[in-house]
Amino acid sequence: MTKSMRLAGLLAGVSIGAMAAGQAWAAESLQDVMKRRDLNEQDVLAAVKTYTPSGKRDEFMVFSSGGQSGDVIVYGIPSMRIIKYIAVFTPEPWQGYGFDDESKKVLEQGSKVDGRDVLFGDTHHPALSETNGDSDGQFLFINDKSTPRIAVIDLKDFETKQIVQNPIITSDHGGPFVSPNTDYIIEAAQYPTPLGHKFAPLDKFNEEYRGAVTYWHFNREKGRIEPEKSFSIELPPYSQDLSDFGKLGSDGWSFTNSFCAERYVGGIEKGRPPFEAGCSAKDTDYMHMINWKKAEELFKAGKTKMINGMAVISLDVAAREGVLFLVPEPKSPHGVDVSPDGKYIIVAGKLDTHGTVYDFAKMQALIAAGKFAGKDDYGVPVLDLKEAIHSQVELGLGPLHTQYDSKPCIAYTSLYVDSMVAKWDYCEGKVLDKISVQYNIGHLMTMEGDTEHPKGHYLVALNKLAIDRFNPVGPLHPQNHQLIDISGDKMQLLYDLPIPLGEPHYAVAIGADKLKPIVRYPFGTDSRTDSKSEFAVRPGSEHTDHKPGKVEVFGTAIRSHFTPEIVEATEGDEISFHITNLERAEDETHGFAVSRHNVNMSLEPGKTSSVTFKANKAGVYPYYCTEFCSALHLEMEGYLLVKPANFKGTGDLGKAGSTYTKADYDARVKANVDTQAVINSVVGYITSVNYKDFPPVVAMVEDATDQLGSAKGAQEKSEGFAAKQDWNNAMLWAEQWFQYQVKAADIGLRAKTYLEQNGAKPVSK
Amino acid sequence: MTKSMRLAGLLAGVSIGAMAAGQAWAAESLQDVMKRRDLNEQDVLAAVKTYTPSGKRDEFMVFSSGGQSGDVIVYGIPSMRIIKYIAVFTPEPWQGYGFDDESKKVLEQGSKVDGRDVLFGDTHHPALSETNGDSDGQFLFINDKSTPRIAVIDLKDFETKQIVQNPIITSDHGGPFVSPNTDYIIEAAQYPTPLGHKFAPLDKFNEEYRGAVTYWHFNREKGRIEPEKSFSIELPPYSQDLSDFGKLGSDGWSFTNSFCAERYVGGIEKGRPPFEAGCSAKDTDYMHMINWKKAEELFKAGKTKMINGMAVISLDVAAREGVLFLVPEPKSPHGVDVSPDGKYIIVAGKLDTHGTVYDFAKMQALIAAGKFAGKDDYGVPVLDLKEAIHSQVELGLGPLHTQYDSKPCIAYTSLYVDSMVAKWDYCEGKVLDKISVQYNIGHLMTMEGDTEHPKGHYLVALNKLAIDRFNPVGPLHPQNHQLIDISGDKMQLLYDLPIPLGEPHYAVAIGADKLKPIVRYPFGTDSRTDSKSEFAVRPGSEHTDHKPGKVEVFGTAIRSHFTPEIVEATEGDEISFHITNLERAEDETHGFAVSRHNVNMSLEPGKTSSVTFKANKAGVYPYYCTEFCSALHLEMEGYLLVKPANFKGTGDLGKAGSTYTKADYDARVKANVDTQAVINSVVGYITSVNYKDFPPVVAMVEDATDQLGSAKGAQEKSEGFAAKQDWNNAMLWAEQWFQYQVKAADIGLRAKTYLEQNGAKPVSK
Repeated sequence: MTKSMRLAGLLAGVSIGAMAAGQAWAAESLQDVMKRRDLNEQDVLAAVKTYTPSGKRDEFMVFSSGGQSGDVIVYGIPSMRIIKYIAVFTPEPWQGYGFDDESKKVLEQGSKVDGRDVLFGDTHHPALSETNGDSDGQFLFINDKSTPRIAVIDLKDFETKQIVQNPIITSDHGGPFVSPNTDYIIEAAQYPTPLGHKFAPLDKFNEEYRGAVTYWHFNREKGRIEPEKSFSIELPPYSQDLSDFGKLGSDGWSFTNSFCAERYVGGIEKGRPPFEAGCSAKDTDYMHMINWKKAEELFKAGKTKMINGMAVISLDVAAREGVLFLVPEPKSPHGVDVSPDGKYIIVAGKLDTHGTVYDFAKMQALIAAGKFAGKDDYGVPVLDLKEAIHSQVELGLGPLHTQYDSKPCIAYTSLYVDSMVAKWDYCEGKVLDKISVQYNIGHLMTMEGDTEHPKGHYLVALNKLAIDRFNPVGPLHPQNHQLIDISGDKMQLLYDLPIPLGEPHYAVAIGADKLKPIVRYPFGTDSRTDSKSEFAVRPGSEHTDHKPGKVEVFGTAIRSHFTPEIVEATEGDEISFHITNLERAEDETHGFAVSRHNVNMSLEPGKTSSVTFKANKAGVYPYYCTEFCSALHLEMEGYLLVKPANFKGTGDLGKAGSTYTKADYDARVKANVDTQAVINSVVGYITSVNYKDFPPVVAMVEDATDQLGSAKGAQEKSEGFAAKQDWNNAMLWAEQWFQYQVKAADIGLRAKTYLEQNGAKPVSK
Repeated sequence: MTKSMRLAGLLAGVSIGAMAAGQAWAAESLQDVMKRRDLNEQDVLAAVKTYTPSGKRDEFMVFSSGGQSGDVIVYGIPSMRIIKYIAVFTPEPWQGYGFDDESKKVLEQGSKVDGRDVLFGDTHHPALSETNGDSDGQFLFINDKSTPRIAVIDLKDFETKQIVQNPIITSDHGGPFVSPNTDYIIEAAQYPTPLGHKFAPLDKFNEEYRGAVTYWHFNREKGRIEPEKSFSIELPPYSQDLSDFGKLGSDGWSFTNSFCAERYVGGIEKGRPPFEAGCSAKDTDYMHMINWKKAEELFKAGKTKMINGMAVISLDVAAREGVLFLVPEPKSPHGVDVSPDGKYIIVAGKLDTHGTVYDFAKMQALIAAGKFAGKDDYGVPVLDLKEAIHSQVELGLGPLHTQYDSKPCIAYTSLYVDSMVAKWDYCEGKVLDKISVQYNIGHLMTMEGDTEHPKGHYLVALNKLAIDRFNPVGPLHPQNHQLIDISGDKMQLLYDLPIPLGEPHYAVAIGADKLKPIVRYPFGTDSRTDSKSEFAVRPGSEHTDHKPGKVEVFGTAIRSHFTPEIVEATEGDEISFHITNLERAEDETHGFAVSRHNVNMSLEPGKTSSVTFKANKAGVYPYYCTEFCSALHLEMEGYLLVKPANFKGTGDLGKAGSTYTKADYDARVKANVDTQAVINSVVGYITSVNYKDFPPVVAMVEDATDQLGSAKGAQEKSEGFAAKQDWNNAMLWAEQWFQYQVKAADIGLRAKTYLEQNGAKPVSK
């Protein structure tokens, strides 16, 4: 309040926009708007720090898990606009994911579970691929806690390419996290179960229930996980939790923490205290320190047992061979976060008030000296907590997860119960600043904050409860991701982003300039295998194959028609549509849906996709383009005729609804000639400036040239029919000639606008 | 550029935030930020006109279709933040939609289609319920073009309550639109097919293919469509398109336009010109004028035939009885939009350059005088275009859809090919302003712009192509919704909103103060039937019923445990979990997932939901809360034990993993007493201020009181065991006592923060 008043004084007489005389939109000055909208000076600064005008780009891109929505959420910083949801474990029709044959194969790698279809995932921890410990923008990995799986997303096209199911654990949490060069992706169990999805009663909990951590091998060349080159390590039946890989000096090691090291089994229905009591009774749980390079050697030497197709290093082997060590950690921790220099590991126990800073060198020295505090019940050596740590720093209530700044020794830890973020110096062991968030914060995230070179600038608080932050939308609220400026000494809240779908758990951010996705596919690409589709056809080669019980369509899509437009089948046939999008213009995606069938595809430029389904009932089923691709998008239609089994028809078309005369033809041609004059003037403008310096415009010009080539083909057909005085066909092909002109004009105008707005300069011809 | 420079001059010496000395976040002045982020004065004004600080609310709420994602998107204006996706035709696990038994019943009303499962929709046109021609904020309706269906969403809780399938048409588009008191909801066909989902060959196109328009009757009391009180009108095989209801003087009439009145059937694969040519060959299509009040009389008089369970007024009856008239309209129109005063209907033909303003009074006079230009091939009277209109106004290339302003006679029309919005006066017939949008715009929307009282202020351009507007995310781009300030004479672009999931077609906006959703359900609500669930149980009454082949769990959820925590079943059993969320605190939603099964529920406070599934394979399956509901959310777990058929176990639990002593108990109790002191201090603060004036805080205090009540119960159990020197159970129940304290403290701190930030004032006790 006071600040606003001081501001009002300072700004008196200054009104942004007042000089834009005559423009009523600008009639309001900055102060007018501030007063009307009840904004203070801090709000104005936050607004200008985040507002991103039309066409301007974000500095960082965030990949957030969508929780039980089963997808990944992509948004920009500082604009905090969500740009894309990527379907991963849950079918999503806009993307055609789980609807076209190609993506179904990917989805089914994960969804076919013991004869059940599991059509959702509970995504938790996205991880970006790294090269030499820094994010490289090539791949994204994400896990599913509910059905333990890891998915691979290629950031070339933001599509899910592979899902691998974990064959030994029944619940996961601590993954994925990647090794510094993405050789391995970690996936740690959560709730203990018998390994290999077997049954054992709870009275065998200590003996037969187990945790585990899987090291999935990633082949960067292929862009795929290789299960046969992956291995797991059996762990005690503690509830394993988050993990992290060492880096630099600690490379070769990974760290996985746990809760419920009490190995408590609830049963409140029988009068026993619930899990939450028994699992939080002791003051410490265990961090697992794993020498994964040594484990890899054991795996390669065959010192594993096979469980359900997965090579597993037994708990006793891991303990005996120096692969596995335990260190106590304060109470029900969540994050275990290795510092950028690899020297420290910070653990925050949700029921403890400290950040505990483990010193990797001290732990290595203890191990080298064989100096252990004891062993756990499974024979695993346990290090002494006090000897393993650099310091413990009092942070607040419910510390949960830690991320790093670009400035040395600076860390940020979320405080769930306090609903705050603590900024602290983990070298000196002191708290530097705290900021309240709205409300209870789970994970937090800084820019590239878990790599060797965090980028500073911003922090996002991933709040688990939004409560009253947004306009009410019923009992189920959005989550609230809050953007915080960390560039100064004091943290400053900039923006509240509601998450409209899903309940994110964790997110990772990367400098936007590291992402270089493609804008179109090479002609005829099966995007899920990244190879040429065997079903792609060039224009003019479209065909429909009829075999007993099977109709197979090899078709194309281009503004604004499919080829073919009529497909006949017989009740009971299996039908496949393979459609190739012939477009080259950016963002010229076509869709393909068949009425009253579960058929929808998203065909981005260059892509070939297929759908296969049973025509189980006779009828007339329009198909159409589901993307508003052009002014005549509604006319981008066709008919699937599913005939009754015994139907005998002529196949002829009946009497035309409308017929045309020479006068119609002449009028159409005249209009087309006029239209061409308009197009020529646009072309004249474009070629009068340096359009070749603007790659998006070059692509538009290529596309417009395609359209004009098609227009010429239609014109020739039209003139051929006219020469034969077939005025009906002459008129209709002249109309089609016009349609191609319209598309060329559309693209041409778009190119002209782009050039005008982006400062194109005249060139001498 | 020039403007920025002028601004820099004017603002010299003025730096917002400079007075906040010592705060490094504010070290940057407004000019610093403008320079760093390359913002001009217009950007700054747009930023402050849209930026909405944490906790502040939007003025308007938008409901946008999600296109082929099958859902509805809810966002706020002016912040342009998406607050919720509502699942409608596509299953969505975060909301449990299509996963819990209750919502499955709603989804399956729409998804069971001739023995096929159709698990997506192509949503097009959301419509808000109206009272006396104005939006009332009670219900939202949405159609599916792909499988003709209408869904009912209750804005009390933003959930889908009902889906009705259209039994006669195979493709729809022109709906839903509501009558001024929401008695009827219109759904018009798109691509002609034989009615009733029958087969007929294309040579019978003129004779057996038909359009239709359905008037669904809505029962506002029940909040449900009543199919038995609904009727349809058979229409000629033109491709019907958008519709609108008359209002005020034109109440009782509805209007549906069309394209492809040529009745052209393509076949490019056979050398015929494609649909797009033949469907756009003539200069006019037909607007259908329907006297629906007269049609309702015919329906009530039984002058209908039944097709597939739907009462249909035949085309010949409709033509003969004065229900149906046609008026030519320029070329391939999309929108048909009745003016706020009900006097005019504006049609924009995408291949014409005009907005055509029809005069309802003139058309009525022509009909009354029996003055027709002729009849179409189906005997429907056709009015003369020139005599039916008020004016035609040249707007630009590709006019598509029109919305109205709060100012009389002012309309806005989208121009697809020009990528512009035209502001014009339809009374005077002149264009007032144009603005470029990025890029090709389909529908547009003003605030309550299709009601009797549009609200002005803002317009949203629903652009179908974003192209280069946002950071690239691969070949599939987001859509771009642009917010435009229409409060002044000149339109001004304020904000670009990327749509991250789905391809919206149309949207409607409503004043935010008209929406009054609930924040919690009454105890034990089945939210899909809006009634008390038969499966709800009170705490203490939870039970598991075992019958041959069936296990039925009647359980509860509360921070942080389910009751029961252990459920036993046998391989092959059908299992039902019915869970009631006992929480009362706002936003305290719990989830429920069973590992490796397709089971996920969203349990908002008060809700009871169920899942039923087959335990087809023996194993140990953890179940857990999928929402991060408290600091001990991970410990909110249980085990579903699916035993092999012939398994005989003791059912005992084995040796405990950890045991506790009197010393542990004493330490725990001491900590609890200390914690209580903290809680008491928070309670002391809350009761020292006027917390009862803040309803959200009152709810928090109720919830915290619940938690403290539970804490007391656990304390009593603990003390009971201590009295018997059962230190193990005493310690564990003391731990549970502490857990309840933590939740009370969490809520208490949240309430304290709220009070501090919202200006609570001390009260005298």
